[in-house]
Amino acid sequence: MIIVLDKKYSEKSLERIKQVVESSGYNLNITEGNDKIALMVIGSPVNIDKSLFMAIDGVETVIPVSGKTGLTGKTDYDHKSIVTLKNNVMIGRGFTMIAGPCSVETEKQMDEVSYFLNTQGVKILRGGAFKPRTSPYSFQGLEEAGLKLLKKYAEKYNMAIITEAVDEVSLDLVSDYADIIQIGARNMYNYSLLKKSSKKPNPILLKRGMSASTDDLLSSAEYLLAGGNNNVILCERGIRGATGIKDTYVLDFNGVDELQTKTHLPVIIDPSHAAKYKNRVFRLAKAAAAYGSDGMMIELHPDPQSALSDGAQSLNFDMFEKLMKSIAILNGLNDGH
Amino acid sequence: MIIVLDKKYSEKSLERIKQVVESSGYNLNITEGNDKIALMVIGSPVNIDKSLFMAIDGVETVIPVSGKTGLTGKTDYDHKSIVTLKNNVMIGRGFTMIAGPCSVETEKQMDEVSYFLNTQGVKILRGGAFKPRTSPYSFQGLEEAGLKLLKKYAEKYNMAIITEAVDEVSLDLVSDYADIIQIGARNMYNYSLLKKSSKKPNPILLKRGMSASTDDLLSSAEYLLAGGNNNVILCERGIRGATGIKDTYVLDFNGVDELQTKTHLPVIIDPSHAAKYKNRVFRLAKAAAAYGSDGMMIELHPDPQSALSDGAQSLNFDMFEKLMKSIAILNGLNDGH
Amino acid sequence: MIIVLDKKYSEKSLERIKQVVESSGYNLNITEGNDKIALMVIGSPVNIDKSLFMAIDGVETVIPVSGKTGLTGKTDYDHKSIVTLKNNVMIGRGFTMIAGPCSVETEKQMDEVSYFLNTQGVKILRGGAFKPRTSPYSFQGLEEAGLKLLKKYAEKYNMAIITEAVDEVSLDLVSDYADIIQIGARNMYNYSLLKKSSKKPNPILLKRGMSASTDDLLSSAEYLLAGGNNNVILCERGIRGATGIKDTYVLDFNGVDELQTKTHLPVIIDPSHAAKYKNRVFRLAKAAAAYGSDGMMIELHPDPQSALSDGAQSLNFDMFEKLMKSIAILNGLNDGH
Amino acid sequence: MIIVLDKKYSEKSLERIKQVVESSGYNLNITEGNDKIALMVIGSPVNIDKSLFMAIDGVETVIPVSGKTGLTGKTDYDHKSIVTLKNNVMIGRGFTMIAGPCSVETEKQMDEVSYFLNTQGVKILRGGAFKPRTSPYSFQGLEEAGLKLLKKYAEKYNMAIITEAVDEVSLDLVSDYADIIQIGARNMYNYSLLKKSSKKPNPILLKRGMSASTDDLLSSAEYLLAGGNNNVILCERGIRGATGIKDTYVLDFNGVDELQTKTHLPVIIDPSHAAKYKNRVFRLAKAAAAYGSDGMMIELHPDPQSALSDGAQSLNFDMFEKLMKSIAILNGLNDGH
Repeated sequence: MIIVLDKKYSEKSLERIKQVVESSGYNLNITEGNDKIALMVIGSPVNIDKSLFMAIDGVETVIPVSGKTGLTGKTDYDHKSIVTLKNNVMIGRGFTMIAGPCSVETEKQMDEVSYFLNTQGVKILRGGAFKPRTSPYSFQGLEEAGLKLLKKYAEKYNMAIITEAVDEVSLDLVSDYADIIQIGARNMYNYSLLKKSSKKPNPILLKRGMSASTDDLLSSAEYLLAGGNNNVILCERGIRGATGIKDTYVLDFNGVDELQTKTHLPVIIDPSHAAKYKNRVFRLAKAAAAYGSDGMMIELHPDPQSALSDGAQSLNFDMFEKLMKSIAILNGLNDGH
Repeated sequence: MIIVLDKKYSEKSLERIKQVVESSGYNLNITEGNDKIALMVIGSPVNIDKSLFMAIDGVETVIPVSGKTGLTGKTDYDHKSIVTLKNNVMIGRGFTMIAGPCSVETEKQMDEVSYFLNTQGVKILRGGAFKPRTSPYSFQGLEEAGLKLLKKYAEKYNMAIITEAVDEVSLDLVSDYADIIQIGARNMYNYSLLKKSSKKPNPILLKRGMSASTDDLLSSAEYLLAGGNNNVILCERGIRGATGIKDTYVLDFNGVDELQTKTHLPVIIDPSHAAKYKNRVFRLAKAAAAYGSDGMMIELHPDPQSALSDGAQSLNFDMFEKLMKSIAILNGLNDGH
Repeated sequence: MIIVLDKKYSEKSLERIKQVVESSGYNLNITEGNDKIALMVIGSPVNIDKSLFMAIDGVETVIPVSGKTGLTGKTDYDHKSIVTLKNNVMIGRGFTMIAGPCSVETEKQMDEVSYFLNTQGVKILRGGAFKPRTSPYSFQGLEEAGLKLLKKYAEKYNMAIITEAVDEVSLDLVSDYADIIQIGARNMYNYSLLKKSSKKPNPILLKRGMSASTDDLLSSAEYLLAGGNNNVILCERGIRGATGIKDTYVLDFNGVDELQTKTHLPVIIDPSHAAKYKNRVFRLAKAAAAYGSDGMMIELHPDPQSALSDGAQSLNFDMFEKLMKSIAILNGLNDGH
Repeated sequence: MIIVLDKKYSEKSLERIKQVVESSGYNLNITEGNDKIALMVIGSPVNIDKSLFMAIDGVETVIPVSGKTGLTGKTDYDHKSIVTLKNNVMIGRGFTMIAGPCSVETEKQMDEVSYFLNTQGVKILRGGAFKPRTSPYSFQGLEEAGLKLLKKYAEKYNMAIITEAVDEVSLDLVSDYADIIQIGARNMYNYSLLKKSSKKPNPILLKRGMSASTDDLLSSAEYLLAGGNNNVILCERGIRGATGIKDTYVLDFNGVDELQTKTHLPVIIDPSHAAKYKNRVFRLAKAAAAYGSDGMMIELHPDPQSALSDGAQSLNFDMFEKLMKSIAILNGLNDGH
């Protein structure tokens, strides 16, 4: 961590900085420039709250530079975690496809989807039972009844389950029914939910918030690891862009690379929300496969036009099958180098 | 609500649209252009989930145009709600100042702050006991002990209390101790927390998320009103801008006007988070007072440089006193026209 | 085009709207809702300046819905243009690779690069002679001397040239030396330069601005076509995102699809600027190839660490060769379906 | 300038860094942390192109920390420039109002506007003769005829003129007719135009681009000062925000403070474009006056509903008069402390 201090403020402010640094057990190395002083806090990892320095008069910037940051940070270049599910599916070794409908709706829908995904070799079934919807008048999910449907058909077709928890009550339920607990983009900053999730035995998939930096995402993941849950998967799903188009997200491929550089946790890509329309999901999913990551999570539906949520961005079975073929070839290419 | 449909898709898609519209109890008026068809759903308010139409082949845009939208919408131009607290302080009539430290820290701090604010005529005390912090290693708040301190000194100096709830447990506690429950920007999309808050007897202050549109904020407020809590105050606190400066927010004054145009709920401004440094808080607060709103919420601290959180953006007592004088004059000007 | 009008303003405002619409030779179809009136302007394409309506009291929104918009718009789904260069290289049929250094620097550099690209089968050489640099103290390009070097080595290795023009003087020079004139992202809104470029015989490659919508890009392209130059290629290069990381751009793949849906002009992708670091350029370029477009423009350098500009994002020869192999396979896949 | 280097890359990369630094005449101070090395370039101002370091393997960040940056930077806290026009109007001392129509349209319009502004004590008349319009089919301005009208009525009512130049030809013309040359937000990155403007004797008003950081704006201003033109005024006009509302800008008040902290150049605010609707212009202008800056530029029109451009955001005379009264009082307040 480097602290840049304006020279005019040096005396009192330097003292305060030293006090914070030394009381936290670190050393300080001081370099004077012409009108600025650079203070380097020595130690690894440096976990002092940056805002404590920002409050001190004359401090202009505080730059975190430490290589390893907390528990999510890599210990070395090749450090990489694998999350293993109960059915021995592994995330973080090879490419893992996760698919299913946005919302669990009916027996028929779930039977059709699970049957189909099983024929496609997909081993993890997604489906929402607790839906965070913008409007209180939109379909809010089947709740526990939805979890039961998920479980019934996941078992029938021998798949693992991932589904979203949105609060303490749903977290307990989801923990009982699901193999992986999903924390959605809208809850990435919900630190209370993160703390509680960290105490569950299930692996957690944590989505990046729509205006969160990759550092923000890693800080949220740090809550999970600090709480004792090491089975964490990160998911890039698109961020707000600056073109002023309503409800639009841009998939941040560089963000995936940033995460892979900084953390040992598996990183997957969700192209459905950024793409918004099924033909774009198809193309973006191929791009994501070519880019390379630990996997993908995609929405599909037996009849997208009648879906109760996210119909426009749900692939139909034909498109999904075509996509799986492309991905198989693309993964082959990625293995090659 | 206007649905724009590509002519090529007209037959089957038209039928599906009609079915959704009519089964929801609305009428449809159809206008054909050269290559597009515009379908106007007649009724007020139109509360159909837009995404149901977006899923239908050939639908290009769905534009909500209805005047009154749900319970947050105005019934007429002058429709305006007032939130009255237990101590008869009203929000929505005149200008209301809310101030206090970012975090409740010590007896001494709270006594000094409350005493000072009382001398300044401030009637509502803010102070965080449950802090949503980016890092799990940063100070997380004193929790119930903090609420007790808040209550002790608010009572000593005859002030009402506002403090943030972040989950079900803290919501129950905050509801017991505070006059107003704050839902922070990071929880604006936490629909579960909104639903639970809607059942509390306390007024709610709801902050706009940092990449949320004003419509998103109103949808979240709709959860509160739909759940039965009509005492809702909205708060603009700054949004992400496109200049690529880390951790920076831009206060969206137009957003305040948009909200005031659309909703009868009181709207206040929090200049502390967007300004980030105390000298900027001071200036932005004056601008906000000149712009005109139902009030302001500001962070201050007896010794900002030693604050456990948000020290850089906390005003000291001198600056706050100066600000109160400016605001008094500015409010006088606003009343004048 | 649909104009939404608040009913309260109907009389005078309706008259004004009618006047503008009819004096422009279009018809108006009026539908009344409960509190809004929807006015559909019938005609195709509708080219009335939207802001003329926005100025009228009570007009709430103006939504362009016309299928074909101007000269850049498709006449039908399969409408697609091909740009043919002097050496019979075609852009818009199959996949075209454009590569070269950010800046033209030395004889040695240009000879090495051109020789190498020729061995790779690349037929279009890029290289900047007029560089729009953020700082006036950064290397600004070799100007005409750079164009001469470009020409010398392009001819030696039988390649076409693309290079950027930044004003009238450079436009004339570039027009003399180059096969394709590039208008950079920072000049996408430089309508004067667009008008002048539209009079040149050379094809134009127009890059999307970093906070421009695809509609903004098409409007800028419309200047070129309206001025008489039909040989226009569009280029997506990344837009500002909302995560607050300085100098960062996010490649907008959906934007490519949006463009391909709306316009008949060829669309290529520049992954170098959004990726920022060479290992990311490599990955993003593969993703772009899998996504599918009419081509790609990439920066490479014989010794990126000593490049006078954009060294961090320039591929070296090894990486480029590896990339070309991947792209060849990916293009094969795209042809397959 | 601080360069952060990963220790693994130290030997060769250190050598390259040293070479660049020393060949530019600066010294280097090296501090080793546990896994990073911090290199401080000593000198003031440090004007080395940051990207030269970014290209070197292992360099992770380059942070500019120098107090004074180039010619736009302050030499000390109170350093402040004043721009004096031919009619002795000064910008940078007290508050200066600039007003007029978006576009110069007719004799009648210009006579009415100039007469009115003169009665209001406004000394600088704005009006566009060369309009950078998104669509080639929108009104593009009267060009030299517009400049003549501007001059005629400015002289009649004894006002100075500011008007926009968009290229070399219009720059020469504008330089002949106007007191201040405006470079618009869309041309802030048009370095060629900046270089040419720097050679003109007229003062320049430079607007911040809509996704430009304040550092980007200062870099563009540096082109003007480096070219020999010291009479530069900066203008904040709103940036893109992250809420995804089309064609929306957020006025960045903090940006004004950032600029005032870094540069001696006068800074004014244009609230018209960010506000978009005249009632919001009115409110935002009051906020801007309370915030404090060297002045304001506002669009007004005798009959906004019939304006050929920007009608929705043009104040009518009544609103402008009311605004001038409010601003007079607000400026009085600002002087008071």
